[in-house]
Amino acid sequence: MSSFGSNFRVTTFGESHCKAVGVIVDGVPPGMPLTEDDVQPQLSRRRPGQSNLTTPRDEKDRVSILSGTEKGFTLGTPIAMTVPNQDQRPHDYGEMDYYPRPSHADFTYLAKYGIKASSGGGRSSARETIGRVAAAGVAEKFLKLTHNVEIVAFVASIGHVTMEPMSGYGKPEEEAEWLARWEKWWGTLKTISREQVDANEVRCPDAEISQRMRERIIAAKEANDSIGGSIVCVIRNVPAGLGEPCFDKLEAKLAHAMMSIPATKGFEIGSGFAGTDIPGHVHNDPFVLRGGKLGTKTNFSGGVQGGISNGENIYFKIAFKPPATIGQAQATATYDGVSGTLAAKGRHDPCVLPRAVPIVEAMSALVIMDALLQQLGRQGASTLLPADLEIPPVLKGELGKSKVVGQVKEADGTHTVQLPKA
Amino acid sequence: MSSFGSNFRVTTFGESHCKAVGVIVDGVPPGMPLTEDDVQPQLSRRRPGQSNLTTPRDEKDRVSILSGTEKGFTLGTPIAMTVPNQDQRPHDYGEMDYYPRPSHADFTYLAKYGIKASSGGGRSSARETIGRVAAAGVAEKFLKLTHNVEIVAFVASIGHVTMEPMSGYGKPEEEAEWLARWEKWWGTLKTISREQVDANEVRCPDAEISQRMRERIIAAKEANDSIGGSIVCVIRNVPAGLGEPCFDKLEAKLAHAMMSIPATKGFEIGSGFAGTDIPGHVHNDPFVLRGGKLGTKTNFSGGVQGGISNGENIYFKIAFKPPATIGQAQATATYDGVSGTLAAKGRHDPCVLPRAVPIVEAMSALVIMDALLQQLGRQGASTLLPADLEIPPVLKGELGKSKVVGQVKEADGTHTVQLPKA
Amino acid sequence: MSSFGSNFRVTTFGESHCKAVGVIVDGVPPGMPLTEDDVQPQLSRRRPGQSNLTTPRDEKDRVSILSGTEKGFTLGTPIAMTVPNQDQRPHDYGEMDYYPRPSHADFTYLAKYGIKASSGGGRSSARETIGRVAAAGVAEKFLKLTHNVEIVAFVASIGHVTMEPMSGYGKPEEEAEWLARWEKWWGTLKTISREQVDANEVRCPDAEISQRMRERIIAAKEANDSIGGSIVCVIRNVPAGLGEPCFDKLEAKLAHAMMSIPATKGFEIGSGFAGTDIPGHVHNDPFVLRGGKLGTKTNFSGGVQGGISNGENIYFKIAFKPPATIGQAQATATYDGVSGTLAAKGRHDPCVLPRAVPIVEAMSALVIMDALLQQLGRQGASTLLPADLEIPPVLKGELGKSKVVGQVKEADGTHTVQLPKA
Amino acid sequence: MSSFGSNFRVTTFGESHCKAVGVIVDGVPPGMPLTEDDVQPQLSRRRPGQSNLTTPRDEKDRVSILSGTEKGFTLGTPIAMTVPNQDQRPHDYGEMDYYPRPSHADFTYLAKYGIKASSGGGRSSARETIGRVAAAGVAEKFLKLTHNVEIVAFVASIGHVTMEPMSGYGKPEEEAEWLARWEKWWGTLKTISREQVDANEVRCPDAEISQRMRERIIAAKEANDSIGGSIVCVIRNVPAGLGEPCFDKLEAKLAHAMMSIPATKGFEIGSGFAGTDIPGHVHNDPFVLRGGKLGTKTNFSGGVQGGISNGENIYFKIAFKPPATIGQAQATATYDGVSGTLAAKGRHDPCVLPRAVPIVEAMSALVIMDALLQQLGRQGASTLLPADLEIPPVLKGELGKSKVVGQVKEADGTHTVQLPKA
Repeated sequence: MSSFGSNFRVTTFGESHCKAVGVIVDGVPPGMPLTEDDVQPQLSRRRPGQSNLTTPRDEKDRVSILSGTEKGFTLGTPIAMTVPNQDQRPHDYGEMDYYPRPSHADFTYLAKYGIKASSGGGRSSARETIGRVAAAGVAEKFLKLTHNVEIVAFVASIGHVTMEPMSGYGKPEEEAEWLARWEKWWGTLKTISREQVDANEVRCPDAEISQRMRERIIAAKEANDSIGGSIVCVIRNVPAGLGEPCFDKLEAKLAHAMMSIPATKGFEIGSGFAGTDIPGHVHNDPFVLRGGKLGTKTNFSGGVQGGISNGENIYFKIAFKPPATIGQAQATATYDGVSGTLAAKGRHDPCVLPRAVPIVEAMSALVIMDALLQQLGRQGASTLLPADLEIPPVLKGELGKSKVVGQVKEADGTHTVQLPKA
Repeated sequence: MSSFGSNFRVTTFGESHCKAVGVIVDGVPPGMPLTEDDVQPQLSRRRPGQSNLTTPRDEKDRVSILSGTEKGFTLGTPIAMTVPNQDQRPHDYGEMDYYPRPSHADFTYLAKYGIKASSGGGRSSARETIGRVAAAGVAEKFLKLTHNVEIVAFVASIGHVTMEPMSGYGKPEEEAEWLARWEKWWGTLKTISREQVDANEVRCPDAEISQRMRERIIAAKEANDSIGGSIVCVIRNVPAGLGEPCFDKLEAKLAHAMMSIPATKGFEIGSGFAGTDIPGHVHNDPFVLRGGKLGTKTNFSGGVQGGISNGENIYFKIAFKPPATIGQAQATATYDGVSGTLAAKGRHDPCVLPRAVPIVEAMSALVIMDALLQQLGRQGASTLLPADLEIPPVLKGELGKSKVVGQVKEADGTHTVQLPKA
Repeated sequence: MSSFGSNFRVTTFGESHCKAVGVIVDGVPPGMPLTEDDVQPQLSRRRPGQSNLTTPRDEKDRVSILSGTEKGFTLGTPIAMTVPNQDQRPHDYGEMDYYPRPSHADFTYLAKYGIKASSGGGRSSARETIGRVAAAGVAEKFLKLTHNVEIVAFVASIGHVTMEPMSGYGKPEEEAEWLARWEKWWGTLKTISREQVDANEVRCPDAEISQRMRERIIAAKEANDSIGGSIVCVIRNVPAGLGEPCFDKLEAKLAHAMMSIPATKGFEIGSGFAGTDIPGHVHNDPFVLRGGKLGTKTNFSGGVQGGISNGENIYFKIAFKPPATIGQAQATATYDGVSGTLAAKGRHDPCVLPRAVPIVEAMSALVIMDALLQQLGRQGASTLLPADLEIPPVLKGELGKSKVVGQVKEADGTHTVQLPKA
Repeated sequence: MSSFGSNFRVTTFGESHCKAVGVIVDGVPPGMPLTEDDVQPQLSRRRPGQSNLTTPRDEKDRVSILSGTEKGFTLGTPIAMTVPNQDQRPHDYGEMDYYPRPSHADFTYLAKYGIKASSGGGRSSARETIGRVAAAGVAEKFLKLTHNVEIVAFVASIGHVTMEPMSGYGKPEEEAEWLARWEKWWGTLKTISREQVDANEVRCPDAEISQRMRERIIAAKEANDSIGGSIVCVIRNVPAGLGEPCFDKLEAKLAHAMMSIPATKGFEIGSGFAGTDIPGHVHNDPFVLRGGKLGTKTNFSGGVQGGISNGENIYFKIAFKPPATIGQAQATATYDGVSGTLAAKGRHDPCVLPRAVPIVEAMSALVIMDALLQQLGRQGASTLLPADLEIPPVLKGELGKSKVVGQVKEADGTHTVQLPKA
């Protein structure tokens, strides 16, 4: 359906050629300052026509808040937001619409609904993401105000041109160098900002690589072709404890959210696919005391363990395929199976990555916000319980109070602990 | 929470040391034959102690159907199933439990709940997946009876030992050879069976590679270490039209489902991350007439376009990290941040991949079943509408009835079509 | 939250003084004709200012469909609809807002949100129901096209002036006369139409009683007072089998829906509270063959048995309290508890009943539509099962195929059957 | 479906003759003491065979907690509970099952599922409520520990024998006496306890009336007939602010919950149907300062205004119809429509009211618990917002801080306030 989230619930609407696209955001905390100015910036980053790398359509995409706020503050009631469509009248394509575009949603929408919008893919239109980005403006504002949560996404690769962020484990003798590359990567994720990302039109923070990415996109454009790539996103300052066992693990919700963005084909968190060949003794993130609380020395986990945030930076990567609509002639078939050749005439995006950056950030904000509200309800409930309940120490863990006992000091000075039989 | 799905809704319960683990399955179609014999086989494939590659615990894992069937048929009412825990009394670990295991859920569960099961990670236990596998037995039975849906997962890599299934695009001059490898891969996915997968204890269908995988796992075991890998799953005979725009795209639900399995770090569908560097004109799957209906010539899409199944085989890959519990001594810290060394004594799995195969299949079945029921409701509703509504042809697409008109035949014989402005 | 329904999911937004109120309708069957003309009539019946019995505000309430349709047909995608608010700028009440209106939502909204709209009760505004009525226009159209479902509500009482529809059981010797009154009542419910209801401004179909109701309302108005009443609603042509055990029984969903309408205090279905003193042997509705299918001779059940529709007319009654805002001076207290006297100056409705009629019909349509889509999914699934499954006859019931055997014919000619031990 | 609640989500399973009935409770606050002893007492009150007024079956109904607790404390993970069925083997009714019992669920279950349990009504069995009562044991424990919430239900009428709790408005000159009766009623609701209710087997707290009720039930039993009645329930110490606009108003959820109990036909809260003829100036509940916070002088609202609890006692009444299964011969028809006479042989309940008392309390607890967790999440979120946000005073209401200004003191000493135009 068209809703996402349970405590912070977002419902979007709109196709390419209807009157407007938009969203209702339910579960908004009351008493938070909010105006269109909080929502517009990310919508403008998502907007087409920002550079000559993207489709030259100049959609205005000005958002209106219809409900749920007064005098610039949220009431706690649903916030509806709309963005009008500039071109509401679909052209009359007459009898022409016989070729479902290869790898586009034309065919599957018809299979699903038995009917389709004149633009073909209906809700698979990129304009649908406007509602998501608008909703995320509300979530981001809250996350920033209450936890200083920072969400930054950037383009990590275009075709073969890549920042080469994460790599698998090589030979043990090269471990130190390999680990140093990971540590440099984690360092980048700690400090990268949207300003740095927006320094160039590709939205890759590495100036040299972004220039090569730019060339790759232009090459695709000139060839009437298209190209994909990958986006990395980091979420900083997320408190430990978010994510719901078992089905709504934080990484499961993030994967769901990211794979619901048009044109995505893959998701990995932390070490991801590279982690499949790292030995356990290297991949495990040891605990260390940092700033008065427990952190981890490395971060192969990507900030999530057992489906729950551990307080470290959450980072993940998303694969985007090349856009399906291309100008090159393609041998394909009509809805009836008659072979023929299709060539698209008209504007189309050779690469969606730069514009997808704010969408990735938006879906991240929606996931974290929903998980946070759910955890706040649980914590609020536990806090209400009487303080004098005599909970057995073994159940409490007692961060900050326990003493190190029960270990066996071996001859070599190592402490061993008999772990619970899982 | 502990529920998954909306029309076919599964709710699981149970930790490692409680009386039982199990599941309630709601939304079961009435009138379908079902007994424990339909559910047990996959549970037995999931069970530990099947080979010396996995933990030697001999859990019986016999399932009981408590409700929802009579005389071997489903009533349409909720089906509850339980599997008793053999070892219900957690050992009294006294004051020993001060080290949260690195990269395990001990720390995050405590952060989330302020309390924890004596076994540490609570619901992150692999035993939780029993409920999922049992529920999937119901779903698989229905999918098999009604659409002959076949779901087969297998181990595609262990550490560096890999079947190397999908690769990115290389030089244009090598395109033919590269494409041949993909085609061979799609061929494998068309025919692979669970029998082939179970031919060896690693559950990799390639005999030679499986032997090397076996050695890699044993090496990890002997080093008191652990190792991860990847699983590929194919779902055959899924009808076109499943998956819900926009947030519940089929690939989004599959990603959600797979990333909710313990120890997963990545998901990719179709071309996945390899697809990020394949040019659009190669990556697009052209339509062809096959068996009287529209199919695609290639299958980089992985059976899903615009979030909706297109009738082709659905396939995806999942990354599993190395298990966190290892016997090697690890320098880490207690809950209080005091540095020390932790070494686990006791049984533990050096590699979860072989046992995860039926869990991946189970989550696949749950996703497809839920999407199918949702689509059946929509189709049922549309079917009820009067036949004489005069729907404009442009909205109907009319598979099997349209004529090829409106194209422009260019000088070179190519037909061009002015596509809708998306 | 602000959503209702699971398969036909309605999400509303808007307060009194925001830019617009409206709704998103998700789960709409594709291919159904739909324009604003299908939605507007009920909105116009709901509108204030229709007669001098209601508040004289002349809200225009013209609805716009923003998405989900094309060329007058539904696409299957979400339909968003909005109605602009005429008066978007709340007056600046300065420091005056210290008296929470007795029995109004001013106090509870503040307790809930810690913040409140300047109009006080925020979403408790009657304008919120606009979104519901608009959404129901979609549902009613489908229900009409596919099952000829007819939904008619009317005012059954205003204060003490009542049509006296349902009464409890009296003395056995008066049973025949008492039953005749019920049968007349069921007869009315079979034929009553919206045209009959709208014949007078009170919306009570009995001309004489409606006149007395009108006088009662005018008396309240002239006394700066208010008055409540009850509305009865009948839903005809609902197929048997709708409603979900156990928690989502059809009557439970109807009760939920009706009690979510502002100012409602009670709900009863079928015999309702009057049924509490009717003996079982009278209250039971015997089965009879009618029009080739099984019906019931009486209808104390109100068309629902065991939470599931039985194909008979569904009817229920809703109690509405007198509106809280009155012009009479009331001794009350400020938010701080300081005693004082409050007298409202300004327009207010002395009685909400006439305008509530279309809202009751709307909520009825939403409940039936959601239940129908859910049942269609189940039926669609069962239909797909192979025909040759050998289901034991005892499980099938086999309407239209069973023979009367197994009864014991007693000496007096009665057949007795040993019922299952429930 | 078989789930209820969103934050405290209860999923039940089980029919009459399956192996067990039970429930999974999700969203349980962690760290709360809980054992079977907290759950069993209400199950025992629900159990048949407690007196000669109810069916003499002696079901043991001993509950087992399967998961979610350890050492007597909740872990925050799902709690599964089961109660075994004593009689798991349905008798083979051979070819006898041709008469759907009038007003029972036999017919509608078959219409819905196309298949049915041998006991006929499947999940409409009273045994299904075991899962609800067990789940409520968890909720009640939390509500008691954290807010001292007290939930007490009792039988208010059996047939014509009634405590006559709430009555409509009569002549103005009798208002004082009429109001005194209401005040006595509110007084009863303030103090009544489960011990008082259990003082007699009817569970009506008035000794004299309960004796007459007892006679009415026995008369029905001896006539092989059945009789209905009404139950009143009061919930004390519910904090202000629970209930979610617009669709999930607290009274809407209570109505939903109560109307999902088998055999219910009506629900009313506060003044209910009697409130339809009370003038607004009498029906409005004026605010007063009480115990340092704002309360209401009267309580016609029943503790809920605008769908949100106001801190006063919540009370409501539920109508129960006479049980459908009776021993008297009934003229009816078979599934095929052949006329005949049906007489039930075997145990059956002449009146469900006494046993329904703990079920009503259970559903009350589930509703309040779910609403409380939802509100705790909202409050937790608002609390996190920075304290220095400059919220306009008009939005804050500022309980405990505002000054009485802005009123106009009229010549007669009354203060008037120009109310917002709603």
